[in-house]
Amino acid sequence: MTTITELDPDECIARLGWSTLGRIAYISDDEPVILPVNFVLHQGMIVIRTDPGEKLNEVPMRRVAFEIDGSDPDETWSVLVRGHAREVTTALGEAYEKLRAIRIPLQAPGEKAHWIAIEITAISGRVIR
Amino acid sequence: MTTITELDPDECIARLGWSTLGRIAYISDDEPVILPVNFVLHQGMIVIRTDPGEKLNEVPMRRVAFEIDGSDPDETWSVLVRGHAREVTTALGEAYEKLRAIRIPLQAPGEKAHWIAIEITAISGRVIR
Repeated sequence: MTTITELDPDECIARLGWSTLGRIAYISDDEPVILPVNFVLHQGMIVIRTDPGEKLNEVPMRRVAFEIDGSDPDETWSVLVRGHAREVTTALGEAYEKLRAIRIPLQAPGEKAHWIAIEITAISGRVIR
Repeated sequence: MTTITELDPDECIARLGWSTLGRIAYISDDEPVILPVNFVLHQGMIVIRTDPGEKLNEVPMRRVAFEIDGSDPDETWSVLVRGHAREVTTALGEAYEKLRAIRIPLQAPGEKAHWIAIEITAISGRVIR
């Protein structure tokens, strides 16, 4: 019998450390867009890097959704995040240098000179066994 | 040296058959939402099943984005789709019975009595090696 177990917020945050590949969704020209991204969790924020031409850079701050999932023979799980994405610029003050110093494992080539930090406003997750 | 190769549309469609777990993104109350979903490709459409309470059922037809990805030691790949999601009802005519007869491998429990068909309007993909 398959069962669903909801994850509490701490478990969700912990699982954000289980992977460095997530997917971000946002609205562009009134249409939903979804992109795979490498990320790292840093002080409760999801930090990603992008290249200048990417659409995610169109506005400095916007609402986004973020997802990671995984499966093994015993279970399938997913964590869903809602949050605000903000470009990491000197306007962030002291946090700027720390965020720009984060090592994010990148799969795609490119300079990826834009850092984006997603402040989490809601998180949920579940495990299917 | 990492390289990106764009996939042509036929290769993208082929890779939609490599997995039965994707992620759908849509707009709900002016916010982006992303959900993992099991799916099957059927006659060029992405077919998924949902339960009645899920937000994807809020409107009968809407623009969605859809993503699958995968990786092995040699490469990481992703396919991005834009399309229109429509509930599979008798209004579809002859296609109704065929769509409702599709076997979709489901991981989550539940009746999943709503079938949704996504008509693909744009598709792209890439491989990072």
